[in-house]
Amino acid sequence: MARAKREMLRAAIVGATGIVGQQFIVALHNHPWIKATTLAASERSAGRSYKEALTDPKTGAFRWYCDEPPDPAVMNIPVQNASEMDVAGVDLIFSAIESEQAQVLEPKFAATKPVISTASAFRYEKDVPILIPGINSEHAALLKQQQKARGWKGFVTPDPNCTTIGLAITLKPIYDAFGIRAVLMTSMQSMSGAGRSPGVIGLDILDNVIPYIAGEEEKVQKETQKILGFFSGNAIQPARFAVSCTCTRVNVREGHTESVFVSTEKKCEPEDVARAMSEYDGFKGLSLPSAPKRLIVVHPDPFRPQPRLDRDTDNGMATVVGRIRKDPALENGIKYLLVSHNTKMGAARGAVLEAELLIEGGYIS
Amino acid sequence: MARAKREMLRAAIVGATGIVGQQFIVALHNHPWIKATTLAASERSAGRSYKEALTDPKTGAFRWYCDEPPDPAVMNIPVQNASEMDVAGVDLIFSAIESEQAQVLEPKFAATKPVISTASAFRYEKDVPILIPGINSEHAALLKQQQKARGWKGFVTPDPNCTTIGLAITLKPIYDAFGIRAVLMTSMQSMSGAGRSPGVIGLDILDNVIPYIAGEEEKVQKETQKILGFFSGNAIQPARFAVSCTCTRVNVREGHTESVFVSTEKKCEPEDVARAMSEYDGFKGLSLPSAPKRLIVVHPDPFRPQPRLDRDTDNGMATVVGRIRKDPALENGIKYLLVSHNTKMGAARGAVLEAELLIEGGYIS
Amino acid sequence: MARAKREMLRAAIVGATGIVGQQFIVALHNHPWIKATTLAASERSAGRSYKEALTDPKTGAFRWYCDEPPDPAVMNIPVQNASEMDVAGVDLIFSAIESEQAQVLEPKFAATKPVISTASAFRYEKDVPILIPGINSEHAALLKQQQKARGWKGFVTPDPNCTTIGLAITLKPIYDAFGIRAVLMTSMQSMSGAGRSPGVIGLDILDNVIPYIAGEEEKVQKETQKILGFFSGNAIQPARFAVSCTCTRVNVREGHTESVFVSTEKKCEPEDVARAMSEYDGFKGLSLPSAPKRLIVVHPDPFRPQPRLDRDTDNGMATVVGRIRKDPALENGIKYLLVSHNTKMGAARGAVLEAELLIEGGYIS
Amino acid sequence: MARAKREMLRAAIVGATGIVGQQFIVALHNHPWIKATTLAASERSAGRSYKEALTDPKTGAFRWYCDEPPDPAVMNIPVQNASEMDVAGVDLIFSAIESEQAQVLEPKFAATKPVISTASAFRYEKDVPILIPGINSEHAALLKQQQKARGWKGFVTPDPNCTTIGLAITLKPIYDAFGIRAVLMTSMQSMSGAGRSPGVIGLDILDNVIPYIAGEEEKVQKETQKILGFFSGNAIQPARFAVSCTCTRVNVREGHTESVFVSTEKKCEPEDVARAMSEYDGFKGLSLPSAPKRLIVVHPDPFRPQPRLDRDTDNGMATVVGRIRKDPALENGIKYLLVSHNTKMGAARGAVLEAELLIEGGYIS
Repeated sequence: MARAKREMLRAAIVGATGIVGQQFIVALHNHPWIKATTLAASERSAGRSYKEALTDPKTGAFRWYCDEPPDPAVMNIPVQNASEMDVAGVDLIFSAIESEQAQVLEPKFAATKPVISTASAFRYEKDVPILIPGINSEHAALLKQQQKARGWKGFVTPDPNCTTIGLAITLKPIYDAFGIRAVLMTSMQSMSGAGRSPGVIGLDILDNVIPYIAGEEEKVQKETQKILGFFSGNAIQPARFAVSCTCTRVNVREGHTESVFVSTEKKCEPEDVARAMSEYDGFKGLSLPSAPKRLIVVHPDPFRPQPRLDRDTDNGMATVVGRIRKDPALENGIKYLLVSHNTKMGAARGAVLEAELLIEGGYIS
Repeated sequence: MARAKREMLRAAIVGATGIVGQQFIVALHNHPWIKATTLAASERSAGRSYKEALTDPKTGAFRWYCDEPPDPAVMNIPVQNASEMDVAGVDLIFSAIESEQAQVLEPKFAATKPVISTASAFRYEKDVPILIPGINSEHAALLKQQQKARGWKGFVTPDPNCTTIGLAITLKPIYDAFGIRAVLMTSMQSMSGAGRSPGVIGLDILDNVIPYIAGEEEKVQKETQKILGFFSGNAIQPARFAVSCTCTRVNVREGHTESVFVSTEKKCEPEDVARAMSEYDGFKGLSLPSAPKRLIVVHPDPFRPQPRLDRDTDNGMATVVGRIRKDPALENGIKYLLVSHNTKMGAARGAVLEAELLIEGGYIS
Repeated sequence: MARAKREMLRAAIVGATGIVGQQFIVALHNHPWIKATTLAASERSAGRSYKEALTDPKTGAFRWYCDEPPDPAVMNIPVQNASEMDVAGVDLIFSAIESEQAQVLEPKFAATKPVISTASAFRYEKDVPILIPGINSEHAALLKQQQKARGWKGFVTPDPNCTTIGLAITLKPIYDAFGIRAVLMTSMQSMSGAGRSPGVIGLDILDNVIPYIAGEEEKVQKETQKILGFFSGNAIQPARFAVSCTCTRVNVREGHTESVFVSTEKKCEPEDVARAMSEYDGFKGLSLPSAPKRLIVVHPDPFRPQPRLDRDTDNGMATVVGRIRKDPALENGIKYLLVSHNTKMGAARGAVLEAELLIEGGYIS
Repeated sequence: MARAKREMLRAAIVGATGIVGQQFIVALHNHPWIKATTLAASERSAGRSYKEALTDPKTGAFRWYCDEPPDPAVMNIPVQNASEMDVAGVDLIFSAIESEQAQVLEPKFAATKPVISTASAFRYEKDVPILIPGINSEHAALLKQQQKARGWKGFVTPDPNCTTIGLAITLKPIYDAFGIRAVLMTSMQSMSGAGRSPGVIGLDILDNVIPYIAGEEEKVQKETQKILGFFSGNAIQPARFAVSCTCTRVNVREGHTESVFVSTEKKCEPEDVARAMSEYDGFKGLSLPSAPKRLIVVHPDPFRPQPRLDRDTDNGMATVVGRIRKDPALENGIKYLLVSHNTKMGAARGAVLEAELLIEGGYIS
């Protein structure tokens, strides 16, 4: 492939010491096109090597949160202060910072460089697409509008929320084949979605379910409509079907489980939906290094999907679906469950996949 | 009250050594109207005292599964073989056996005595009501038909499934005030609902959600319609609204959490629903010892209900509701979450409450 | 009893909004001798009512962490800034603040008032006893020295560490009857011992054991020797036996489990130890409202003690012991397991019990 | 190496459908020397393909319990009835059956073939070594005595108990360098050690520690002495130091954690012990495919080892040690914690490693 012959692209990771930042390190380890060359975090870490920044000075403990070991090559990279990061030497920027900070820093970076972000700060702006490669790749063209409107050489393109992504992916083949009137979803989200500062406290989640995640439901509702919306060439017309969510937290480490009820426009049988999902191929012709073989894996066993067993399917990049069956309460009702890896496809690896799409599309070079 | 002056009623508990049987022992401890005088279990326990039957002969371990300590008064009662139990000396029978065995034994007992059962064996028979005191108390009159049709002096009246009960209770005031078109519910059920033989294996539930509970969804759908059905005087006409469930298991010890979406006939605001639930009083005039002060407690905190914090509200007899809000995907849509104690209101204590209703109504004496 | 006729003593709770502060509210609810009349916390809470201080202004969530509901009587008490608290109107002060702050504030309070503290700040000072009522009640007399030496009208007397308390209590009857050469203990501590700021993060403890709790082992070793030390009349001579601990954290909400190995001076059989523990009565003649019926409950079932089943024995004030047996690796070796409630006997209720002892002894009035 | 040129050895796995049996399938997947060609299980599975035997006929659920996917090559092997298994075509047998059944079947198999077993049935027989390759490889020679004494062409050689193995491995370099007087160990064992029939019930372990595992402590004490015993040429003289264990179960899926206290003969510093462990190389010259690079990995971070983070070190074949420090209560006291993977090194993979040792030694061909 032509790609392999090009020079490696140099990426900065902002927020590199956090849980999502670490997932970026893992996602770029041995990546064939992109190399992490610049790391930035809070002022506190600035000036120390990445290894030192992750090491507790009092106890010597090494704060690494991924299952995969860290790439030794990045250990000695000096961590910069995110708010003063020098972007001159990089080709693209992965942002894993909190939304408030993203509001300030991402436009600054985007003035000159492409920024792919896991923060929600810009998701709901008119000229900002929420890209899921293979699902709404064509929305990438909106970035041209964004550059023009804002006078940027770069751009900001955010990942969807980690709870949106599995929902939007599994709705896409249904939407294409049968149309959608309404979606009702209850999530059982893992703890890693809340991060570590302090995230979910052990005392609160043991023997428990937390029935509320502030702001989450609104995000999922809005983002799903935008992602499955129609791109007219210069704007995205959100999909018209209604989406209603109830988002809860359960005692699971990684992997969001979602119980989905869908009312379709056209009548369809569970087998039709299973086939549409299994056969869905959003990457026709494209060959992106981080793409899963199939965006959706349909499991015939009624006891699946389970977050512990299915979250890592295809490196955590596939959404696993099971129990597709008729729903007796909705018109043309279909229901199913899905499991999606919230810090892989739902965060860092998903953002890297997005970068790959934009590289192939010529948006990043 | 007149009750207190009457003789104590003598109850048999069948399946007394299991988790629900033990909950019956707890529910009848210091009960003002009913006393456990006969205990029965499998052949293996027969002939031993209740205390011995719960004691592991090899290790001396005492197998007691309730939070509340056992009633010392029952410790020396000799356990009978359930299939040969002598019912002559009892006034009513609580059955906590498996459905297959219930199919055989409950008719035998019902020939002469009232049987209140936590098994599903007879729930779907035409002449059998599924009673929730305060919700459909008037269905009790169907027992007369049952006695006539079957030539029994006693009767069988089963508890609803532990997942049905919280749903039916919270739907009742909505149904009364606004009518219901459709209900979509996703449950996050506790482990105790699966019992201990072996129930949920620790290896399976740690860091996980199990997305399937065999047979559960069909039960909840059917039972909800029957409980909220119209009793014509000699038959129950199931409620006409559709019910669709997805039932899952989470790593919680006790207390089922349910995420409910409802489409009502009449338009209503969340405040209206909250008021209808909070003010719902199914026990007007009735004073039953095990009844909660309110069948439904509405919690204003968005982080509630939580199973660990709310399951024991009013001795595990109240259903706790929170996050009542508009649902954007259904016509006149309302959504909320509930927590209901599956082995208290949802099993033994619920059955005792049912007995109390039937005593007050003159069905048991 | 003479007590009942006296006026109620008025107590301040410093650090009243935290998890231990809340446990103090619970421990003093309906207390016959002591009433919480003053509450203090950080500057952030100052000026708000206790109820407001516990309510999240953004979500309305009420942050109450105890199983028992809060005393409605304290809800409207205005919270003072701890560092400026007015102690004029109180008879004693319960301190539930962090050690660093205790270092500064407790001497200030102690200048005029008795301070009973759950912080470790003063535990290792020569003139400060670490009291466990019924175990080393006679050490209270050291407070006279402290007052003299420091020129205080009040005093500081700290609770032992929550991991020390169960160990010291169970060692006491062994020490009295057989002497002790050495103690080796491995703890499996609950999450509540780490508090909530952020305490133990859910992601870290799920499917895991944390093998280290900074500073804990040294505390337990030192405190155990001091508590079981000999009080000469003006100083405590620490017990001479060696104590070695390994402290770990497990996925348990409340209740520390400890695996103890003891080498005794005199030979003894497990039955002797069980009897010495069961018969141990440290409260001869004393009748303190918060005292458990027995400080130690010995369980014959080999599967006990278990933290979930045994932590609340006698309101969380008894230490439950099981599996007392010979240890083949130590001279006169005995081994056993214990469960002790770390936020009841091991913190707030334990401190209230201590106050009761000091009231009876005339140290507080 | 000479090995590679030889024919692949054909292995039978008895008890192939259970959790340890499945781990054998995983351990032999792509193994360079050994191939699973025969599978046996209970009568119920006999006659079905391995895939069918693992598939629930009612629900279609596939009962696979390992993290690694099953080897497709074994899916169509017909499962034989273990008690009638035809051993003619195999070169060695891995036995993963329960001890009672092992008592009967293993001698039958051993009459003609080498049997490597995870059952405890024969561990305590005089002519049976408990081999840990790299720790007591020389004990293999005892198999000659066994064959002679019993008139077998084959032999039985059992794995140690999954709790013994990490302890024995980490004691070995201490024993060699400093001698051992006494060992006191408290284990915090994972649920997988109890299997799935039903193993640990979720209701029992949530928010809990189980302080007793029947028979476990005796096994660990006896086996450790035997493994570290001296082999005189025709018998094993157990090591003379005393071992005392307290074995508990915690809410962890895989990986046993052990808190170890050791009294050594010679004085030694923690650094000496760390060095002796890190440098320990039991495989000098030997190159066994399943052997870890190092039998012991010493972790400098005080928060390690943790079962979730460390159990899979070197494919679950290394024992990870941390917190090596002085013990103040024992003569020449040293204490540390270890994590060892109980179903990998502690069961199936450990047995395969043992087979490799015996193949290299010429005991299996």
